[in-house]
Amino acid sequence: MKKIAILGSTGSIGVQALEVISKIEGFEVIALSANSNIELLQKQIDKFKPQYIAIMDENKISEIKASSAQVYFGVEGLNILAALPEVDIVINALMGNIGLFPTVNAIKSKKRVCIANKETLVTAGEIIMPLVKQYGVDLIPIDSEHSAILQCLRGNERSDIERLILTASGGPFRNKTKKELEFVTVTDALKHPTYSMGAKITIDSATLMNKGLEVIEAKWLFDMPLEKIDIIIHPQSIIHSMTEYADGSIMAQMGTPDMRLPIQYALSYPNRIKNSYNRLDLSNMNDLIFETLYVDNFPCLNLCLEAAKTGGTLPTVMNAANEIAVEKFLNEEISFTEIPKLIESTMLAYTVKYNMNLDDIIEADRWGREKAQILAST
Amino acid sequence: MKKIAILGSTGSIGVQALEVISKIEGFEVIALSANSNIELLQKQIDKFKPQYIAIMDENKISEIKASSAQVYFGVEGLNILAALPEVDIVINALMGNIGLFPTVNAIKSKKRVCIANKETLVTAGEIIMPLVKQYGVDLIPIDSEHSAILQCLRGNERSDIERLILTASGGPFRNKTKKELEFVTVTDALKHPTYSMGAKITIDSATLMNKGLEVIEAKWLFDMPLEKIDIIIHPQSIIHSMTEYADGSIMAQMGTPDMRLPIQYALSYPNRIKNSYNRLDLSNMNDLIFETLYVDNFPCLNLCLEAAKTGGTLPTVMNAANEIAVEKFLNEEISFTEIPKLIESTMLAYTVKYNMNLDDIIEADRWGREKAQILAST
Repeated sequence: MKKIAILGSTGSIGVQALEVISKIEGFEVIALSANSNIELLQKQIDKFKPQYIAIMDENKISEIKASSAQVYFGVEGLNILAALPEVDIVINALMGNIGLFPTVNAIKSKKRVCIANKETLVTAGEIIMPLVKQYGVDLIPIDSEHSAILQCLRGNERSDIERLILTASGGPFRNKTKKELEFVTVTDALKHPTYSMGAKITIDSATLMNKGLEVIEAKWLFDMPLEKIDIIIHPQSIIHSMTEYADGSIMAQMGTPDMRLPIQYALSYPNRIKNSYNRLDLSNMNDLIFETLYVDNFPCLNLCLEAAKTGGTLPTVMNAANEIAVEKFLNEEISFTEIPKLIESTMLAYTVKYNMNLDDIIEADRWGREKAQILAST
Repeated sequence: MKKIAILGSTGSIGVQALEVISKIEGFEVIALSANSNIELLQKQIDKFKPQYIAIMDENKISEIKASSAQVYFGVEGLNILAALPEVDIVINALMGNIGLFPTVNAIKSKKRVCIANKETLVTAGEIIMPLVKQYGVDLIPIDSEHSAILQCLRGNERSDIERLILTASGGPFRNKTKKELEFVTVTDALKHPTYSMGAKITIDSATLMNKGLEVIEAKWLFDMPLEKIDIIIHPQSIIHSMTEYADGSIMAQMGTPDMRLPIQYALSYPNRIKNSYNRLDLSNMNDLIFETLYVDNFPCLNLCLEAAKTGGTLPTVMNAANEIAVEKFLNEEISFTEIPKLIESTMLAYTVKYNMNLDDIIEADRWGREKAQILAST
């Protein structure tokens, strides 16, 4: 029986992870953490009866009814859950750079880390990956693209890889002109063509920032130079990503657009577990479309790739500025086309730091958020 | 340096195998065999300077100019080449059941066998596969579908396989009605939509007999029950085949429709070798189509799958009758729709033998050919 700690159990990935675990044998949830949704956390506690719980706000500990569980709070609570001696697998489904230290703690405690937290690799891949190697642990991606690439790489030699090909749905604005983009509303942007996800990631899908962040994650996760990572537009999201080899062979992983599949694979890797989720209906899979991506049409993606090339703390600042920009767009404080402008001006105002440590990343993140806030209000 | 014997070097696969070998490092051709095309064989001898040569007709030995090579003839010549002590890899690109004994000889001599000869597995899979296991050799398929499946299976557990999915172009008559099929000509049938191949296999592609034979080969090669092998129509032949796993994930292998790719992979397996063949242009890969296959529309395929289910020597008789039927269609002695009729009446007249040995297979093949000839002329 593999014992699991879920950090961020009330978010979209956390909820789906619990659903996956409840349907398969051999895995047991023993620790849950949540930020503010105490009501949902309580339901999860009642159902999964974890031995350990962490919440952000100390004042809410009294609201939790879990007589036999130990309850921790704050960032320290997350770090404790990530390093519990009984835990085999940590699912890091936290949002934001709060996910960084628990990842490090889990790796140093030799846990398998199933990672949905973007910041871990986007901002700190340079620090995280050597740790993964040093401690000999598995860092397994929870998202359809990187899970696909992981599967496409199985049984192949690193040296035979010619490129990784991330598929991108292209988002809801794939065919819009620059002029049209100026007038898109929050409601328009929240209509993702294939996946149902949180608001922030849906906007990131519309700007293709999300794909840029995935490029950075792929770079670290699979130790690939940026020039060997391509993006192709594939609106149906049936092929989740591909790898091309030196002999011209392309391996593709396909499936329904269902996050439970990469979650389950991250738990069972390198094996698979039978499930009864809807299967891809191949006979109904007509007219699969693939289109060249023109980076210039997606300024957020372009900025993200620029930040990736520069490296150091710039991806952190870029990511922080993007979070502020998306938040302001969702609050209807800025327009859709102002998102990249705000990110760019924040990046331009920054002096990149190299050979950074985790504290430098936290500081760069803080700086980026603050600067973006200031720039947005001027 | 891996040393290679090519049996059937003047056929389509043999010629392409030589091209592949001439473009990569680490492989050397030391033995060639041909049936009747002495002129092409001589060119190959001049270029590759093999130490061993085999031809079918003893009387033609004098026509061969190869002062330093040993020249053998007849079936025995093929058996000698397949078992040469210096040889590491035998490419069996022979046509017909003449390929059977050399395969067995190569396996018993512990060679890697790269197999393009259909009869080896279609008629004798039951005998061949236990030998492959017993002698611990690699039997690697040279055709795009099985090569694709081999690649899709890498790094996965047998027990996780839910099904193999062979893609079929559907041939030139995919959208023809039964009535229209009655009037198709040899010229129509020889127009394969995606691959350029020999006449026999092109007709087998039009009747989908070829896909049925591939199902039988897949059954033996990957030790899969027939009910776990599906066929889907995919006219563009871009996805060469797929595997579906217990968790719903589908792995697909894609590439240009170029036989040199599976030939090269069979040689380099499990590694890959860089080449400069045309690459699949993903951005030009629009409207990939997948359609359900209705077996009833393809009576030859239906008969082939029936024979596979029955097993024993029936696939051999079915295959023999098909060869005669296709020959007669190519000679314009029977119509396209008479092909399955001739196969069916031959199968119906036969009493299946089980627990057969290789001699039983040779006898069943002889019987099937003779019977089909007789039935065709009555």
